Amino acid sequence: MRKVVYGVGISLDGYIARPDGAVDFLFMPKDYSMGAFFKRIDVAVMGRKTYEVGMKLAGGKISSPGMACYVFSQVLGDDAPGGVTVVREAPKSFLAKLRKKAGKDIWLMGGGLLTRAFLQDDLVDEIYLGIVPTLIGQGIPAFPASFPQREFALVENKSFSKGLASLRYERAPKRKRK
Amino acid sequence: MRKVVYGVGISLDGYIARPDGAVDFLFMPKDYSMGAFFKRIDVAVMGRKTYEVGMKLAGGKISSPGMACYVFSQVLGDDAPGGVTVVREAPKSFLAKLRKKAGKDIWLMGGGLLTRAFLQDDLVDEIYLGIVPTLIGQGIPAFPASFPQREFALVENKSFSKGLASLRYERAPKRKRK
Repeated sequence: MRKVVYGVGISLDGYIARPDGAVDFLFMPKDYSMGAFFKRIDVAVMGRKTYEVGMKLAGGKISSPGMACYVFSQVLGDDAPGGVTVVREAPKSFLAKLRKKAGKDIWLMGGGLLTRAFLQDDLVDEIYLGIVPTLIGQGIPAFPASFPQREFALVENKSFSKGLASLRYERAPKRKRK
Repeated sequence: MRKVVYGVGISLDGYIARPDGAVDFLFMPKDYSMGAFFKRIDVAVMGRKTYEVGMKLAGGKISSPGMACYVFSQVLGDDAPGGVTVVREAPKSFLAKLRKKAGKDIWLMGGGLLTRAFLQDDLVDEIYLGIVPTLIGQGIPAFPASFPQREFALVENKSFSKGLASLRYERAPKRKRK
């Protein structure tokens, strides 16, 4: 089945962005590559705020030939620019339909509120965190409260230059504490 | 100079405890040892809530022969049990005096509010995080907003059994991004 992967860069204090959406504190070290990640993904889903920040950073086009982009929003019009599709239904029913179609895995890009909705409905199969070694002091949390407890298993933990720690987790149905 | 080390176990979503202070989600894998850490520490400082949870877990005595315990509180009496000393002054002036005395490093055990005060005054020299692979959904944050941005350098990143990731950071005066 197509998996939902929550993949984000975060500050050491757990924020995906500053209060105004800025992500200037994030960086991509030379020895780190998202190539393998992008190979397994062909859909990106995001909230409106992440879309708006992404559009600024990407210069007006957020989708690409190999990556369909869906933006969850009740506010955006159907003609939202950037090659995206606006989604008005709940994540759970949208995901159920998307998972029935053939395709690669699904990237949950953020932001905070959409991630909470996904976690509330237990829709996140994997978590990829790139932790930068900076406390930014305030911002938009990667895991906004509240949602039920979810167990994961650590499947990869690597360090890269400039102090980036990359951790990958898979959803674990039960506690693995033996 | 004696360093202040903020050393805590946290959930994958960045909490040091549940909303009621419970830390049942934390665990210590068999292949993980805090022995080296304790060897370099002879003072523990904490907030009142961390003290109260610690007293419950420790069965009424939180200090030990090699570890003096200081509890920051305006509420506790000077006769607070457990072999602790109650501190009523601000962290900055207290630390300045403590650092002038000969001794080992200082363990900031938590909790959230005291940690924020330390970070606001830039008193944290090292951060040790033990990240358990569980999202608990809500709780007491390890790094409560807000405080000025602080740069750190990743100096150690190890994985242990049961999915514990152990990351150690040292305060970096400037961004190290080259």
